[in-house]
Amino acid sequence: MLKDSLIECGAIKFGKFTLTSGKESSYYVDIKQASTNPKVLKEIAVEMSKLIKNENVDVLAGMELGAVPLVVALALEIKIPYVIIRKEKPTHGTGKQIIGKVKAGQNALIVEDVATTGGSVVKALNVLRDDGLIVNKVFVVVDREEGATESLQNMNVELIPLVKASDLKQED
Amino acid sequence: MLKDSLIECGAIKFGKFTLTSGKESSYYVDIKQASTNPKVLKEIAVEMSKLIKNENVDVLAGMELGAVPLVVALALEIKIPYVIIRKEKPTHGTGKQIIGKVKAGQNALIVEDVATTGGSVVKALNVLRDDGLIVNKVFVVVDREEGATESLQNMNVELIPLVKASDLKQED
Repeated sequence: MLKDSLIECGAIKFGKFTLTSGKESSYYVDIKQASTNPKVLKEIAVEMSKLIKNENVDVLAGMELGAVPLVVALALEIKIPYVIIRKEKPTHGTGKQIIGKVKAGQNALIVEDVATTGGSVVKALNVLRDDGLIVNKVFVVVDREEGATESLQNMNVELIPLVKASDLKQED
Repeated sequence: MLKDSLIECGAIKFGKFTLTSGKESSYYVDIKQASTNPKVLKEIAVEMSKLIKNENVDVLAGMELGAVPLVVALALEIKIPYVIIRKEKPTHGTGKQIIGKVKAGQNALIVEDVATTGGSVVKALNVLRDDGLIVNKVFVVVDREEGATESLQNMNVELIPLVKASDLKQED
């Protein structure tokens, strides 16, 4: 199971952690331990690919920098192109916030590493919708279940996690 | 041939271009047209994988952001872990310039998108060597042949391109 692989590679750790928000947590997520490990990265891509068998997806999208390995791995797995969304719009030159090709009217699927309150995903969603793309679903490796589902529901988007906080509770 | 795929997907364009350096060029390289296209990205990874059959590589390394898709694709192809090298050392928090795990004494292989004078690759090389890694080779998708080979030779590193400027001359 992916949860076990994430624990084994050190991407999910149990203990007592103080998050940057100041909150206490019984687990810690360090997704780069998974995304830099080709075996676990491949497993994530395969798990996500199973979720999109019946979807109509023209392009994948991942936020710089944490989601880039995930969206690349999924793109290679399902042979669909992807774009990278920069955190901020470049202030100089002709740089765009979306790296790669998109067209208005395309169906985009967002891939994210970790969702907490959903702030980062909502940002990505707005960038894509501003360019005329249709986004209905977001795949995330770990959902900390701290509001992202609700934030996205308000924007008519479904958050689909591979692993969620409540799956981890029994390990405490 | 990879060169043809790069031309076909728009990653290499012929014409009259003025580069950001002010120089005139008869071709233009926009590698993200290749790296966001899963078919061409896979082709790059396969071509690079053929070059490392007899190498002893413990870890791959790619510079943020352009080389990340390339190093991820190669890592998945040959099942070797990779790290991302940030352009700058983070000034806040506990952030490191190398994202992912490295150990002193490991053999690292750098993957780069485009080499011009080699400045960016030399930076990556210094970051890895400062952490005690051994680096002898750099793979690059396109070598513009404007000094990178020489810059790297001075540091005892071999630059190995998939496509080089002189391969493109006949298309002028």
